[in-house]
Amino acid sequence: MRALVLALAACALLGQTQATRAAREFRQDREQSILEEFFRLLRTQDLAGTAELLRAALTARGLDARLLTVDGAAPVVYATRGVPGARQTVLFYAHYDYQPVVAKQWIGHGPFEPILRDKPLEQGGQRISFPEAGSEIDPEWRIYARSSSDDKGSIQAMLTALDALKAAAVTPSVNLKFLFEGEEEDGSRNLGRILAAHKEEAAADMWLICDGPVHQTRRQQIYFGARGVTTLDVTVYGARRELHSGHYGNWAPNPAMRLAQLLASMKSADGRILVKGYLDGIEPLGAAEKRALDEEPVIDEDLKRELWLGSTENAPRRLSELINLPSLNIRGMASGSVGDEARNVIPARATATVDLRLVKGVDWRAAQDKVIEHIRAQGYFVVEAEPDEATLLAHERVAKVARGNGYNAVRTPMDSEASRQVIRAVEAARGATVKMPTLGGSVPLSIIQDVVNVPLIGIPIANHDNSQHAANENLRIRNLWDAIELFASLYTM
Amino acid sequence: MRALVLALAACALLGQTQATRAAREFRQDREQSILEEFFRLLRTQDLAGTAELLRAALTARGLDARLLTVDGAAPVVYATRGVPGARQTVLFYAHYDYQPVVAKQWIGHGPFEPILRDKPLEQGGQRISFPEAGSEIDPEWRIYARSSSDDKGSIQAMLTALDALKAAAVTPSVNLKFLFEGEEEDGSRNLGRILAAHKEEAAADMWLICDGPVHQTRRQQIYFGARGVTTLDVTVYGARRELHSGHYGNWAPNPAMRLAQLLASMKSADGRILVKGYLDGIEPLGAAEKRALDEEPVIDEDLKRELWLGSTENAPRRLSELINLPSLNIRGMASGSVGDEARNVIPARATATVDLRLVKGVDWRAAQDKVIEHIRAQGYFVVEAEPDEATLLAHERVAKVARGNGYNAVRTPMDSEASRQVIRAVEAARGATVKMPTLGGSVPLSIIQDVVNVPLIGIPIANHDNSQHAANENLRIRNLWDAIELFASLYTM
Repeated sequence: MRALVLALAACALLGQTQATRAAREFRQDREQSILEEFFRLLRTQDLAGTAELLRAALTARGLDARLLTVDGAAPVVYATRGVPGARQTVLFYAHYDYQPVVAKQWIGHGPFEPILRDKPLEQGGQRISFPEAGSEIDPEWRIYARSSSDDKGSIQAMLTALDALKAAAVTPSVNLKFLFEGEEEDGSRNLGRILAAHKEEAAADMWLICDGPVHQTRRQQIYFGARGVTTLDVTVYGARRELHSGHYGNWAPNPAMRLAQLLASMKSADGRILVKGYLDGIEPLGAAEKRALDEEPVIDEDLKRELWLGSTENAPRRLSELINLPSLNIRGMASGSVGDEARNVIPARATATVDLRLVKGVDWRAAQDKVIEHIRAQGYFVVEAEPDEATLLAHERVAKVARGNGYNAVRTPMDSEASRQVIRAVEAARGATVKMPTLGGSVPLSIIQDVVNVPLIGIPIANHDNSQHAANENLRIRNLWDAIELFASLYTM
Repeated sequence: MRALVLALAACALLGQTQATRAAREFRQDREQSILEEFFRLLRTQDLAGTAELLRAALTARGLDARLLTVDGAAPVVYATRGVPGARQTVLFYAHYDYQPVVAKQWIGHGPFEPILRDKPLEQGGQRISFPEAGSEIDPEWRIYARSSSDDKGSIQAMLTALDALKAAAVTPSVNLKFLFEGEEEDGSRNLGRILAAHKEEAAADMWLICDGPVHQTRRQQIYFGARGVTTLDVTVYGARRELHSGHYGNWAPNPAMRLAQLLASMKSADGRILVKGYLDGIEPLGAAEKRALDEEPVIDEDLKRELWLGSTENAPRRLSELINLPSLNIRGMASGSVGDEARNVIPARATATVDLRLVKGVDWRAAQDKVIEHIRAQGYFVVEAEPDEATLLAHERVAKVARGNGYNAVRTPMDSEASRQVIRAVEAARGATVKMPTLGGSVPLSIIQDVVNVPLIGIPIANHDNSQHAANENLRIRNLWDAIELFASLYTM
């Protein structure tokens, strides 16, 4: 039996090696036209237009493609290709929506006007013109545009890998499904509803989640889970209007100071979370997961240098370990005005948006409850809507806490058969991998798992330094080329 | 001798009563045209144009008026009227510049488009059209415009009081000087230079500072000093760029959290300032000042209700007492984005602007030093300019601290001859007064005192609920009418 498994694995490996080579040769002949198609995708800003463009792109490649819709949601692009005799169905998930943009923070071009730079902006990267057909393309160049790495790069690589196999007359070994979501950056708030309404389309032996960055060493990464996430908006109050800081300072409460004190109470100076019970219930890592963490390259010092960090939170614990624990992060904090715009007032209110990242065993609503309980324990009367005069007068401190959406963490065991099959196919194309029990970022695995309940495994392709979610998002061209080979290998696993 | 002083005082009182009555009758006949002139002044936004308008208004009233200028500064409007036989010269100071505006925060009109409302905005005040000549004007109406109360209202009242005395053929008892500054809201950064270059013009037996609000009970207030003020902009750093909060949260330092912790370390939960030595050196109040504080009406509970405050800082100490102590106030705090604009990042930096209010005996530069020393004591390496890569990598925590301008507190003894003379003249027009050793707000008394070294006494006229320095600044019409009588009395003191 063991011999048979090994023989099958060896056979699959041969197919994957062949597919990978075909993908490379195909790409090398057509780099400029691949980029042209990708730029068209990056220029498409509206979600409905993007969905239609992708549906057409999949149809043109011979797939049965259509849009899955429910009322009030951006459509999901869905396509399938059955393979005669295939015993498995693998679904490739990515999302075509993107983070909000602040156009003025983009240097030299608009977020939906893709450009090339000869190296990263932080290293003085200069804009270069789009290459003529046949001219050489340096794989260290970067494509700057919103969603270039998160996730349209994955989608483009999947499309090109389909072309490559077809050109080489290589047949996939598994039935293929593609499912591209349009609301991931909005918390995938309708994904569960769409999947529940399209159970047949969502059915597969495994889902591969093609979202996120590769490892900071540039080695291919596979993740077997993701943190859950939710948010809280916390607002505290001073007087009902801004007050002159001279006439009332020392007497009227300053909401910025109160918010600072409240936030400061949530973490120690070295980064430990002080919210009571916040770490309770965490499901411990298994043996395979612990081994993977031990094998993970140590990158902390390199990363500190790259990011200009003189210290880290929770030192000396490493990033790889900390990502498997819940976090509490201030996304933003606002009160009054600063710098040249500051006026000599006591602000009337102060707001912070906090995100909570959660690991397996911790429910996102329970995590919100714990933070809200912590706020109460600091003497605040907590309300959910804007407090009125009577409420403000009746309590020494009032905080409005608005709960955001969320989802829970998910983890697929690393030593399952599906996990081992995926690891083999990825390593056939990309060599040794970094295997992460949990991705730091949150992809909506729990929403998917609630409906399909199959192994979910993450295959990210973007460079780690892609400025994801911030301005000047970019994709290193080498990562796009690598991803084409990676998907070709996965299609034949 | 004492009999002579009393006789002179009684004689002066008679003149003041007559002047006050003349001012009232004059105003009652011309309310609409007074408002017309005032609205013209409020509509004038540019500083050079305002200075010229005021120079012309003073010249038209028979004064010797001109602009005092030095390179690079907004002009000071200066005018004088000598009175034959007068033994004293009294200078009336106000400023014609104003706080910056955020136009979109103004409800229903632009900040330089004055309008009338039938009551305060907070009480649902509705816009009413400008009254026809001769129609009744409710003194509880309010004039909404930037600088209506800070300080153009004072200036308008001074002008109208000149008209009233002239119409009634009442001669001032003192030589009058008027000096209107154009950079007070910018820290009076050139006032010292202008006064030093115009010592003769600045010379007087006393300066009356006509800036600030009356007491919260609406009783006329006289202040004999003002707190000093300065600012610090504090910026702390995370990574050199925004990071995905999922991939790096728990590991990369969050500058918003660090700023919150740093600010929280400066004050206790109940409002005590924790910066070491911050209260050292304070010059204690004298017997007259302590008595004045004891006599001051207790308004704290009323004020809390008006401002919707469920608690105050430093309770149970009263506002009147706290204003005679240094304060530390956060004007604004900013990092990342909040609410709907929040993205799931760890911000790259966080900034707060802090103002320090100071009392007699505490130098503003020394106060800055103490706060900077406190920041160092929290583990920060403090720089004055944007830190570079090497600096950020070499230190666990880096704070950039930008020092603002400032000036020191000043206090004129309440039992001096000048103080007593002013109290008598004010009370002749306005009845019992509230006498404050120190105004909470900072007017540039120390800059003036450094050059002229004479008694400086504050005669504010604005309603306390004028939204000064914030949006929707306003002046209650009753306060403008009262001020006309007040200045008429002071001209004849």
